[in-house]
Formats: sequence, C-alpha cells, structure tokens
Amino acid sequence: MKKSDESLGRIVAELKGKKNVLVATHVFPDGDALGSQLAMGNILEGMGKKVFYYSEERISHLYDYMPGCEKLESRLPKPAVFDAIISLDCGDCFRLGEALEDLREIHPFVVIDHHSGHKEFGDLRWIDPNRSSTGEMVYELAVALGADISYEAAFCLFTAIVADTGSFKYDCTTASTFRVAGELVDLGVKPYDVARKLFDNYTTGRLRLLEAVLGTLEMHADGQIAIITVTQEMFARTGAKRDDTEDFINYPRALNTVKVAIFIKEGIDGWIGVSMRAKGECDVAQLAMTFGGGGHRNAAGYRLQGSTIAAVRTALLPELLRRLAAKGL
Amino acid sequence: MKKSDESLGRIVAELKGKKNVLVATHVFPDGDALGSQLAMGNILEGMGKKVFYYSEERISHLYDYMPGCEKLESRLPKPAVFDAIISLDCGDCFRLGEALEDLREIHPFVVIDHHSGHKEFGDLRWIDPNRSSTGEMVYELAVALGADISYEAAFCLFTAIVADTGSFKYDCTTASTFRVAGELVDLGVKPYDVARKLFDNYTTGRLRLLEAVLGTLEMHADGQIAIITVTQEMFARTGAKRDDTEDFINYPRALNTVKVAIFIKEGIDGWIGVSMRAKGECDVAQLAMTFGGGGHRNAAGYRLQGSTIAAVRTALLPELLRRLAAKGL
Repeated sequence: MKKSDESLGRIVAELKGKKNVLVATHVFPDGDALGSQLAMGNILEGMGKKVFYYSEERISHLYDYMPGCEKLESRLPKPAVFDAIISLDCGDCFRLGEALEDLREIHPFVVIDHHSGHKEFGDLRWIDPNRSSTGEMVYELAVALGADISYEAAFCLFTAIVADTGSFKYDCTTASTFRVAGELVDLGVKPYDVARKLFDNYTTGRLRLLEAVLGTLEMHADGQIAIITVTQEMFARTGAKRDDTEDFINYPRALNTVKVAIFIKEGIDGWIGVSMRAKGECDVAQLAMTFGGGGHRNAAGYRLQGSTIAAVRTALLPELLRRLAAKGL
Repeated sequence: MKKSDESLGRIVAELKGKKNVLVATHVFPDGDALGSQLAMGNILEGMGKKVFYYSEERISHLYDYMPGCEKLESRLPKPAVFDAIISLDCGDCFRLGEALEDLREIHPFVVIDHHSGHKEFGDLRWIDPNRSSTGEMVYELAVALGADISYEAAFCLFTAIVADTGSFKYDCTTASTFRVAGELVDLGVKPYDVARKLFDNYTTGRLRLLEAVLGTLEMHADGQIAIITVTQEMFARTGAKRDDTEDFINYPRALNTVKVAIFIKEGIDGWIGVSMRAKGECDVAQLAMTFGGGGHRNAAGYRLQGSTIAAVRTALLPELLRRLAAKGL
C-alpha cells in the first residue's frame, strides 16, 4: 500500500468516530483553501458531526459567494473543545491563524495538503504534492469515508480544483483531476456557474486597474524578464482593491519570450510586495529566499518594509539577471 | 438508438472501406476547427488511409504549432479524386473554402459538427449541439472506429476541446467533456503543454494592444453593456496583428454587471467588424441578424463595409438599449 493511501486510510478510521470537529485553512485563503475547508465541513456535517469553521480574517470579496462562508467564525468558542482538527491546504502551522496556536495539542490534528514545501505539523498527515489541489484530496477522502457529497460540497470542491489549476491549465492537472471534475459535474455542478463566479467577477475598477498596470510593463534581458507594478495612486484612481490584482501577474507570465514575470506592489504602511512567476525549468523560490521570502519553484515572493518600488527593482533586477546568465534559476 | 448514435454508426461503417479521404474545416479556423481536422486526418492515416488536408487560408500564428499543420494544402490535386470528404466544425458549406464547391457531389460527404445554427449540407451528417466541441466528437468517432489515437492526434483533440470550452469554463462543458479530456491525458497529453501554447502566447505587442483596447472601455445602461474598440492606429502603434484581438472581448464580458459585451473592430479597406457576447438568458444572434450578421445566442457578430466605429455605435446602441429594456434580448 502506498504511504499516501495509508495516510488516507488512517484519517478515515480516526474521523469516523469523531463528533465535534474544527476545520481550518491558511490565512488569506484562496479558492482551493476556502473551497476545501467549506466542503470538508459540509461533508462532515452531512455525516452528523458538529463542525466549527475557523477563519481569522474576513474572506476576500472574490470568494465570499461560496456556500458555507456565512458559517466561518473568527473567534473560538469557550471552552474550545474539539474531538479533532483538520487543517486543509496549509503548509505551515503559523499560517492557520493565531487562535489555533492554543489548540496544537488536540488529537488527532489532521493535516491534508498538496504543497510540496510543506512544513511538518499535526499528528496525522496526508501530504500529496502530486495532487492538483487540496480539493481533489478532500473529494477522495469523502469517497473513502462513504459520505454523501451534497451539491454545495461538490460546488466548493469544483471551485477549489478550478482555482488551483487555473481552470485545468497548470502543470499540476492530471488525468485524476479530470476524473474528479467529471464526477463533481455528475453531482450537479455546472462548470460555467463556477467559472462565472471565479473569473467573470471583474468590476469596472478592476479592469481599469488592469489597464493601468499593463501600462507599467517593462521588459528586460531580451524579453526574458517582464516587470509590472501597481501603486497606491492607481488603486485610488480606479477604486479597485488589493484583492483585485490577484491574477495580474499572469499577463506578463503569458508573454511568449518571458521566463520570469515580476509584479511589484506598493502596499500601505510602507510595505512593498513582490510576486514572481517562473516558467519551465526556472526556479524563483531560491531567489525569493535571498530576500527573506519563499514559495514554490514556479511561484514565489517576498515582502519588504520601508522600501520603494524603485529600490526593490534596483536590488532585484541585477540578481535576477546574474542568475539567469549563470543558469542559476 | 439515439439519432446521434445512429449517425455515428453510419459514419463508422462508411469510412471503414475508404482509402482516399479529404478533411476540411471552416475558413479562418479556430482551435477546435483546426484541432479536429488535423486529428481526424492523423487518425485516418493511422488506419492506413491516404488523407488530403485542405485549407484555403494560411493558419493563424496562434495555432500554427499544431502537429500536422505542415500538411495543410490550399490547392486541390488534379484530378481531385476522393472516396470521401469529411467536413469538421463547419456550420455552413460556403465557409469550407471556394475549391470545395467543386467537390459537393462526392459521396459520402460526411459532416461532423456541434454548432446549433448548422445549415444542412452533406449526405452523412452527425450534428450534436450538446457536445462541447467537434474535438470531443472526433474522439468518440476514433473510439467507435477502433482506431489507435496517436499522441499527435490526442494533442490536437485536447487543444480543440480546450479552445472551444475556454479551458473547461463555458456552458458547453459537460461530464463527458471531462471524461474525454482525462482519457486524452492518459494518452500522454500534458494539459500544461496545451495551455501554454494556447494561452501563454502573447507577444509584447499583443499585451500593449490589450492595454490600448482596455483604455477604450465604455459602459452603458448602468453597466449592463460594455463596449471596447480597436483601430488601425492601435495595430500600427503596438505592432500587433488582427488575430491578436481574438480573446479581447472576454475582458468586458468578465465584468460582473455586464449582460452584453461589444467589440467594434476597425478593419482594413473600410470594413468594420462587430463581435457581441451575451451572458445568461440574453440572445445577441437576433440582434446580429438585424445588421446582416449571425451567430449563436451568446456569441454573434456582423461586418459592415464603408462605415466607421462611431457610426456603428450610433446604429447599434439604441437598438441594443431598446431590446434590453423590452427584455427582447
């Protein structure tokens, strides 16, 4: 039996008897994180369990239509007594939210995740970096539990998969991803409903912000590097929000000559955020670490306090060019 | 037996004995048209048949990487003798290219298409508007023929499906679409390879054109109508090509308040092209017909000679507003 299947089997055995379960995911949850959390909770509720949905922060307006969002709570009940905790799509226990730090001793502390840079925590771990998304794993768990999957859970799981595969486009998409997606459609999910919510959700302000950001495009190293930037002035002028920039880095990334795309974001209170995307063999995780950040090979980033867009560019670009020339990316 | 299965069965029976087959699709082929044509030809060649790949026009640079493109020919051999013709993804025989008009009498003239507005032609028709794409149908045909599906054919079919479903996002995507996609991945297709070719193919000029076109965005009727335009001056300034605007209408379409998105394109020689996309219940096909065009309910358009962008807007907008107010869309 594969280690992965063994972990799944143990989780199924442990969860069956539990009555009072907390489900959690990382702060600033994306579609896979939130979809997995809400679906897991819905599935457990369907099995007659009591579920507490924990989320430290308010959910981004990009995802707040997902069924079950209204159940999320930022404060733990007192006393916070649970039979089990399930952490979904979270590679680092410090990203689960502060309140969960007091609950580390609860057993089982189940961890379900597909991130390759996973930091070990919890006492019952099912980590499979070969899965497209945590949503794909929660579907398998539901099947292994013999649980009914409601339309709401199926919708959340389909959303999770679509969000983390860029709608079946990214490298992580496998035959298994398509099989699961097809089965979720058999459960009533309409792909267009999910896509419309995830992708047809632009405000006019967001589109005007995209226009402004595309206007900042600069190319370096014969088109191998593309940089875009966003400033607070652009947010103010267009009325768009921080979340609205979520997929903007895909535009420079989609350029046919580009190996590394960079998005430098002027935040509030003197913060500058840098997102990087690499294509093919290029690895930006190491580069991000040089500046105190981290991430995956093809998607990494870092944040700096008290800097400017110009200063970040001046520090980053020579290092990037050097590594690109030395094929050290 | 369903009519659709019956048609498939008859096509299988007819094709088995044929030795010399012409495959064709509509002029200005998109990803589904070209992918279906090239895959169909490859599959028939794999069965030992001689295949002639007909295409009146040069293929857009957006698709010319597809395996088999080099086999396309714009001139028929003399004499043009074929055992069978297969028209793929083409709803109107006048869009097959001029040379094919001389071959209308060849039997069987097989027609495989998923368009709902299909105009009847050919003598052996398999038309199924419930399919996501003609590619999905060609896959079924290959299976029914008992043919081996090569990697190249699988790549073309996957491309066809991704192109016509917007990567599994559009309304036409079904559980069967996912099943076929999964089986094509089992045949060796890597979804990312296809997505990279179809979507990560922006030139810098194309991105700058996108920026310019987004700058033309106008909203009407409380955000229900969004209009973007492109001029010859923008093409000249950015160095982008006509094909490069292909998916631009999806940007106004993605606005959350928009019911109808319009893209007015200044062509050469005094032509103005109008593309329209409607969401949900709205129907732009009727509206397009009013101006001498046509299309599907949610995607239609028309062309006018000797007009201007301003004149087109002045004629179209009141008609659109009137229909929207009368819920006649």
